[in-house]
Amino acid sequence: MNFSSDNVTPICPEILAAIAAESDRAALPYGADGQSQMLDSAFSELFGTDVCVVPVATGTAANLIGLSGLVSPFGGVVCHHHAHINKTESTGVAFYGGGAKLLGIDGPSAKLEAATLDQFLASHSPNGMHSVDPECVAITQTTEFGTLYSVDEVHAIGGVCQKHKMRLFMDGARFANAVAALDCHPADITWKAGVDVLSFGATKNGALAVDAIILFDPELRRHTEKSRKRGGHLFSKHRYLAAQLLAYLKDDLWLRNARHANNAAKALQQSLEALGAKAAFPPEGNELFIHMNDDLAGSLRDAGIVFRPWASIGPDAYRFVCAWNSPIDLISDLPKAISG
Amino acid sequence: MNFSSDNVTPICPEILAAIAAESDRAALPYGADGQSQMLDSAFSELFGTDVCVVPVATGTAANLIGLSGLVSPFGGVVCHHHAHINKTESTGVAFYGGGAKLLGIDGPSAKLEAATLDQFLASHSPNGMHSVDPECVAITQTTEFGTLYSVDEVHAIGGVCQKHKMRLFMDGARFANAVAALDCHPADITWKAGVDVLSFGATKNGALAVDAIILFDPELRRHTEKSRKRGGHLFSKHRYLAAQLLAYLKDDLWLRNARHANNAAKALQQSLEALGAKAAFPPEGNELFIHMNDDLAGSLRDAGIVFRPWASIGPDAYRFVCAWNSPIDLISDLPKAISG
Amino acid sequence: MNFSSDNVTPICPEILAAIAAESDRAALPYGADGQSQMLDSAFSELFGTDVCVVPVATGTAANLIGLSGLVSPFGGVVCHHHAHINKTESTGVAFYGGGAKLLGIDGPSAKLEAATLDQFLASHSPNGMHSVDPECVAITQTTEFGTLYSVDEVHAIGGVCQKHKMRLFMDGARFANAVAALDCHPADITWKAGVDVLSFGATKNGALAVDAIILFDPELRRHTEKSRKRGGHLFSKHRYLAAQLLAYLKDDLWLRNARHANNAAKALQQSLEALGAKAAFPPEGNELFIHMNDDLAGSLRDAGIVFRPWASIGPDAYRFVCAWNSPIDLISDLPKAISG
Amino acid sequence: MNFSSDNVTPICPEILAAIAAESDRAALPYGADGQSQMLDSAFSELFGTDVCVVPVATGTAANLIGLSGLVSPFGGVVCHHHAHINKTESTGVAFYGGGAKLLGIDGPSAKLEAATLDQFLASHSPNGMHSVDPECVAITQTTEFGTLYSVDEVHAIGGVCQKHKMRLFMDGARFANAVAALDCHPADITWKAGVDVLSFGATKNGALAVDAIILFDPELRRHTEKSRKRGGHLFSKHRYLAAQLLAYLKDDLWLRNARHANNAAKALQQSLEALGAKAAFPPEGNELFIHMNDDLAGSLRDAGIVFRPWASIGPDAYRFVCAWNSPIDLISDLPKAISG
Repeated sequence: MNFSSDNVTPICPEILAAIAAESDRAALPYGADGQSQMLDSAFSELFGTDVCVVPVATGTAANLIGLSGLVSPFGGVVCHHHAHINKTESTGVAFYGGGAKLLGIDGPSAKLEAATLDQFLASHSPNGMHSVDPECVAITQTTEFGTLYSVDEVHAIGGVCQKHKMRLFMDGARFANAVAALDCHPADITWKAGVDVLSFGATKNGALAVDAIILFDPELRRHTEKSRKRGGHLFSKHRYLAAQLLAYLKDDLWLRNARHANNAAKALQQSLEALGAKAAFPPEGNELFIHMNDDLAGSLRDAGIVFRPWASIGPDAYRFVCAWNSPIDLISDLPKAISG
Repeated sequence: MNFSSDNVTPICPEILAAIAAESDRAALPYGADGQSQMLDSAFSELFGTDVCVVPVATGTAANLIGLSGLVSPFGGVVCHHHAHINKTESTGVAFYGGGAKLLGIDGPSAKLEAATLDQFLASHSPNGMHSVDPECVAITQTTEFGTLYSVDEVHAIGGVCQKHKMRLFMDGARFANAVAALDCHPADITWKAGVDVLSFGATKNGALAVDAIILFDPELRRHTEKSRKRGGHLFSKHRYLAAQLLAYLKDDLWLRNARHANNAAKALQQSLEALGAKAAFPPEGNELFIHMNDDLAGSLRDAGIVFRPWASIGPDAYRFVCAWNSPIDLISDLPKAISG
Repeated sequence: MNFSSDNVTPICPEILAAIAAESDRAALPYGADGQSQMLDSAFSELFGTDVCVVPVATGTAANLIGLSGLVSPFGGVVCHHHAHINKTESTGVAFYGGGAKLLGIDGPSAKLEAATLDQFLASHSPNGMHSVDPECVAITQTTEFGTLYSVDEVHAIGGVCQKHKMRLFMDGARFANAVAALDCHPADITWKAGVDVLSFGATKNGALAVDAIILFDPELRRHTEKSRKRGGHLFSKHRYLAAQLLAYLKDDLWLRNARHANNAAKALQQSLEALGAKAAFPPEGNELFIHMNDDLAGSLRDAGIVFRPWASIGPDAYRFVCAWNSPIDLISDLPKAISG
Repeated sequence: MNFSSDNVTPICPEILAAIAAESDRAALPYGADGQSQMLDSAFSELFGTDVCVVPVATGTAANLIGLSGLVSPFGGVVCHHHAHINKTESTGVAFYGGGAKLLGIDGPSAKLEAATLDQFLASHSPNGMHSVDPECVAITQTTEFGTLYSVDEVHAIGGVCQKHKMRLFMDGARFANAVAALDCHPADITWKAGVDVLSFGATKNGALAVDAIILFDPELRRHTEKSRKRGGHLFSKHRYLAAQLLAYLKDDLWLRNARHANNAAKALQQSLEALGAKAAFPPEGNELFIHMNDDLAGSLRDAGIVFRPWASIGPDAYRFVCAWNSPIDLISDLPKAISG
């Protein structure tokens, strides 16, 4: 069993079928095809409000291009120190943002807290031309430590952003896992809470390669589409991005996949804790960060279980990521298999 | 029949099968999987020299990222006025090149001529800090007008580049069509002629979405890979790029597809000229640029033939692009079908 | 006599006195001092409309920063092929413009013609996301070949810009020479003709180092000031920029200096034509481009006259630039001195 | 008395005289004049090694352009959180560095400590393409809190940089105050300690507007000069930058001015502490950060003393900056004047 990341998984059958179904017809390029033209309405229905959809092939591209419309070349993006955009996306935010700067702050379990954010923004004394003034806040849902902002917490952050005239971006590489875990409407943790732009991840949750930039502010469309083209992210065979996304939404595949992954993570927590491990945070989505001793880690490895150490949480900490295809039965049987 | 572009075609069966074959196993992300690890050797064998391969999902990304290692932020890229990088890739060259400037020059049928290039580079009087000095030359093979550089012509341009200490880039979005048409070894029109970096297109010739940046100078690997990641083009499920490319090379699929497309274009020329049209250039690859009167254009449209006007060649000029799946029989029957 | 450029001249006495007069008092930095605070009103009075003034120390900075507010990172700046911003300012426009591209077109004596511009903008077929669409037009007054746009010509260009929704920028490194030559109100060739931003040169016309970005659209102030700071162009001892500019305006020093230089250029034309040279264009400002044979060029050099060959006009062409301190008497005596 | 900054001071007489002395002759532009040509040798003599000198008009430009040659667009610059480049130069480092990122760390009194730096660099786990890897370390001498790196401390930091293959940059906006305070040879705290590039400030210490980028690695010249031109910082009347710098070096004016300012700061500390204030740090250069109660602050303001609150040190903290022209007698008499 491979828990090293959700990106080690293959395409799920429904999405592969959707790709294959494209293989006997011609279609206009660059988003002019029929399926691409359906994206705005499909996602507008999903979110219960008018949205613009700009699909790209990677989560990093979705974040960088999605953010680029929310911050000027002279401005700052406030995020958690552990944010993916701050730690794992090279100098991409400055690249797509024309120099825009990341301003990292702290918070428990990789979450920004509304009060801390409020204080940071209030105490940030702009000195005219000289400083980098915050223009945008970015949060990740679920977070880089597998934790979750509740509906109230997202609204609280949205309120602080409104108070300080900040735009709000959500990195939703694992947005499906968040909605599944919260059992809420997708609107509840996005536009209703003040989110301007969401990167809506599909790649980690069963797609081949597609994450959709969801613009809740239609004014952002032109900049976002121009930025996508200039970055080399406008697909000629754009229908293959659309086909993946439409299959992902159909019959709630996105939520079904995410629920499965979340359940697998919970089962894995139980199994590993039965073996003596201790979760660093309760696994709220599909990621489990857990402390365990060397013996247990060795036994798991001997049993062919793949996972990664996670030094930023502790020397004895590890990350396990479940996915749409994680074998829950085998996971539940782990205590027996290992200790037996 | 849709001749509006080769990007309206679906994935060819062999490549779809290769994607589907990935669907039952886990694989390491970001290029660490087994198939991705085979790319360097597969392409090194193809080209008969050691190359580094950096795959991305679009031809524009391949051009922009591939070029970015060949020019400084203060330098110029000499290309034909009609080059795709100059006309159709937004401000991408300056974006990935940190400000690098395109210097467009003229030449017949979208081709740079060695003598013209030599003269331009010789007469370009650098005025120290003030001007943008050429650092790189970029050619497209086959060109934006469907024409072809012969092996000798590429070598002549490579010689001029060497003389003036220019790097040489080749936009090979339709490289397969060029090799098929010239019936040469891929080395003959690339590294043996002085090409430093090639964008090796697959998307237009049967793939879902993959073009490979081929680095003939291994020193360029680090910059190119960093530039790819920063641009958001590093796939997590990188194996799907690799699987497409390996299937594309296997049993010369890339050349078989290209030969088919080239033959279709020749058949199309014959059919349309039989109907009174006149090719603007002999179709050397899979693109046909042709003059015809309104009546013929109307008849073709009435028959369900899709194609595009091409104003930069003339008011009565049109582009037809053939592909790996163009129906040669139907094409040959066109005169009968239209005039019948 | 040194005619190689107007930038070989020293500071004129009035401006040196203004700098020296600052030397016994403290003053707030970064533009908060009293003299800096007077700039907006002084220039508003000069132009007969409300303007914002953003001074910098070089003409290139004035052009690059002034332009940066008029074009997006995806857009184009239409200018003459010979424009200073296109030929002599490195990759600065793309740098400050986040990738913005220069689109050079032709015209006689380094001038854009309204009809040509109209045609270019009309025939520029935007292809959606792919191309670089013009967003701004830039003209130089007086031009790089020492010629002049008449009041009507500037208005005609402004009209074309309005028609095509282009912003209009004027490189006024030698704006004073233009106003002196046209004997017009500065408003007549700027905001009344649709100019959005002007770089108002002083360095070449007697200052130590100051060119002012004049914003006729106050909405541009924030971007322009942010861009100036980020580029490292915000002076701490800003009062020294202000002192130069206020002295430059006082008692029409800027026009007196320019008239002198223009007159010197006319006298120089007469003297050199008396010696057998032939002006390439009538010298409308302070620059003289002239054809002459090797013998005459040699005789002038032997007499200690300094000037530069100008290959872009012809193999026998030379540039002579007069300035606020050119010795008109000696210039008039040249025929006698040389042939005598 | 105005202690709000050293940039509120006028030009010192020697430098004004040098500017005035330029006023009766022509000189080649862009650094080709005689005085500019003397800069390399003058500074090479000063530093006891071959250096290249690239003068610009502002300290921010010197930092941004000087740094730009030491870091790639994908790399990081490690500096103190309070560094001027991190707090007070907008997004300039990313701008000139093509996206390069600032990585702020902590340390007492705005100083980086070698051990902390070593630990940061050692524990920074590069994750391949994804993270921003440090490439350069930047320190400020004297620091943003008026403190000083000893000769040994600079060498210790240089050693850590060498160990981790980092380039080393020194922001020397107040370098003269540091050399004066340490009474060392300028080489001792620069190239002998491993500094690659120094911004050598003159503006705050008596000049009109000039800070020199000193390159101890001659390989950096081309990039630095290209970067300067592209940023609009190459002066046409470059001799005025050179004249200021040569006058600044002549007869150790730079050290004499700095010693005066340092002595004034010490006298000011004594006077204010006699009045009940308490220095936050011992004033090692020309800046004094001091705690005092509202009564004392009010009395000083009533007496016409100008100074600034400094919240980042504390709610009762203030900054006083002395300069080349600070009246030491009046400063020493302050206790009597205020309390009398």
